[in-house]
Amino acid sequence: MKKRLEEKLAAIQPIKEEFLSSAQARLDHLTKPVGSLGQLEELAKRYAAMVEKATPAIQKKIIYTFAADHGVVKEGISAYPREVTAQMVYNFLRKGAGINVLAEHVGAEIIVVDIGVDHEFTPAEGLVIRKVAAGTGNMILGPAMSRKQALQAIQVGLEMADHAATQKADLVGTGDMGIGNTTPSSAILSVLAGMPVNQVTHRGTGIDDIGLARKIQIIEKAIARNKPDPHDPLDVLAKVGGFEIGGIAGLIMGCASHRIPVVVDGFISTAGAMIAVALNPTIKGYLFASHQSVEVGHRFMWEYLGQKPILNLSLRLGEGTGAALAMGIIEAGVKIMTQMATFTEAGVSGKNP
Amino acid sequence: MKKRLEEKLAAIQPIKEEFLSSAQARLDHLTKPVGSLGQLEELAKRYAAMVEKATPAIQKKIIYTFAADHGVVKEGISAYPREVTAQMVYNFLRKGAGINVLAEHVGAEIIVVDIGVDHEFTPAEGLVIRKVAAGTGNMILGPAMSRKQALQAIQVGLEMADHAATQKADLVGTGDMGIGNTTPSSAILSVLAGMPVNQVTHRGTGIDDIGLARKIQIIEKAIARNKPDPHDPLDVLAKVGGFEIGGIAGLIMGCASHRIPVVVDGFISTAGAMIAVALNPTIKGYLFASHQSVEVGHRFMWEYLGQKPILNLSLRLGEGTGAALAMGIIEAGVKIMTQMATFTEAGVSGKNP
Repeated sequence: MKKRLEEKLAAIQPIKEEFLSSAQARLDHLTKPVGSLGQLEELAKRYAAMVEKATPAIQKKIIYTFAADHGVVKEGISAYPREVTAQMVYNFLRKGAGINVLAEHVGAEIIVVDIGVDHEFTPAEGLVIRKVAAGTGNMILGPAMSRKQALQAIQVGLEMADHAATQKADLVGTGDMGIGNTTPSSAILSVLAGMPVNQVTHRGTGIDDIGLARKIQIIEKAIARNKPDPHDPLDVLAKVGGFEIGGIAGLIMGCASHRIPVVVDGFISTAGAMIAVALNPTIKGYLFASHQSVEVGHRFMWEYLGQKPILNLSLRLGEGTGAALAMGIIEAGVKIMTQMATFTEAGVSGKNP
Repeated sequence: MKKRLEEKLAAIQPIKEEFLSSAQARLDHLTKPVGSLGQLEELAKRYAAMVEKATPAIQKKIIYTFAADHGVVKEGISAYPREVTAQMVYNFLRKGAGINVLAEHVGAEIIVVDIGVDHEFTPAEGLVIRKVAAGTGNMILGPAMSRKQALQAIQVGLEMADHAATQKADLVGTGDMGIGNTTPSSAILSVLAGMPVNQVTHRGTGIDDIGLARKIQIIEKAIARNKPDPHDPLDVLAKVGGFEIGGIAGLIMGCASHRIPVVVDGFISTAGAMIAVALNPTIKGYLFASHQSVEVGHRFMWEYLGQKPILNLSLRLGEGTGAALAMGIIEAGVKIMTQMATFTEAGVSGKNP
């Protein structure tokens, strides 16, 4: 399993400058002042370079929403009860959740991956069951999972990336569901970025001041107890992570190895992206930063990843909702690059001499 | 003509609190933590209150792009030659411009309104010819237009709003095309907001430092020469405005009177919105702020209008491109409000007690 991961990581190719510059040249000939579509042009250019095509088209879009439970929920770090994870998976399958509405709006499919929910699902359309275990262990008592389980979670994500490649996905989005999962995400950020827990921990789905103080204490205890090694991302994932975070990290690595651009959703997904990038920084080139979340630590994650978020709509839902919305903007940028007329084609005069 | 305008302005009704609060109640029962979809929820709630429907749907979307020329271009305030205005109108009609691509992406129609281009167009599909004159006068020599012409430009916009109502438009976007039109827009902002010209003037389509210094001087001269009365928005429009800006102001007033929500595009469109709101502040309730432009003065315009921009993508193209992108986000918010399951419907547990 470790070998497969190392092969995947080694197979990731850096973005080639030549594709960025030819896309820029195309953009500069379109009937608009140079650079006047700002970040849309940036997105288009990066997309073209990721897929190594001069005139790409985004047709197939898939969002993988990884769901898992967390042992640390016993410590009262979430505003919602643990059973909501499984209940929300059913809500996804019945198309009643936020991600269903937004994915449909942008024309994306959703695949829900049970990577560790504490509930036995019967097979259903749109649900992939790849449970590593029925929830992680309580990280204040010991590691959230074994190193073997961490590798297994990443492996599930790699499989989903292979699925995306088989489906000829043009754009992949990440998503998460797991009551309590801002806690491991803050822990990962604190360890990998070397930041104090109280600067990177926030209210998640809506805890109050007392709950926030307790959450910070719990994360500090978990880090003190497990001593995750910041130079060993797998160790960090195993000791203070979550199965869905490992799945997301694997999906991102796999997509980068297939040169499928990935839109990273909110705080939990971005923790997964941090694990992936810590394992191989070349992965940065294949990421789109969907949005700036309300979670205070999120901007430090984007800084760590060297990404500029596309949207800033005060979202804090996860599930892939921010990724879905950003997919619509990325697609708009790609269409600008490929569908607009050039000055010559349109017979429009250029700038004054 | 003045009478019709006064009737329109008097017919605009304030947004009713009861529709905002019932929309909020609906949003708070959906299967997501309260408020977790941030600005999307805000947009949905405001939309519901504007159209006074509990479960609205956005189907028909129309963007009106007003095109006109500007006498002040003779002073060398733009990076592009005057003939580009007409050339770009042809580009719109051939579907080669940025607005064509982005409107198609979000499923909006475009109607191009020749309200004052210095070129005789033959009738074409998608083009409405309502020329006030073949370009404004040079505002450093005298008023850009007469008060009668200002009223006439607004009247064209009111007619377009009536057209939108006849077409049962659910959402209207504004757009502009007019070489040189950041110059009158900065002038309007300076006069109505009482701000120094050099704080609200920027590079438009891309002038250099010398060009920017000249542009500031020209605007200062035009204001000194014409002495527009900040308490008389029609006087401001006439003396230092433009025909497309008047048309946009009229469109916005008319939409507010029909209770059709309007998405205001970039710097030029927002100057039009300032004229409309200066005439009747109730209009603010019907506006959506599409995006924060690169033009330095734009944020002062949004402050004046009391609006928070939806997107911030470093755009500076105009045409309605920002409005188109924002339409996609507003529609997403409305779908969230009307298509998500409630906790009860989905059998999902609420917050911990």
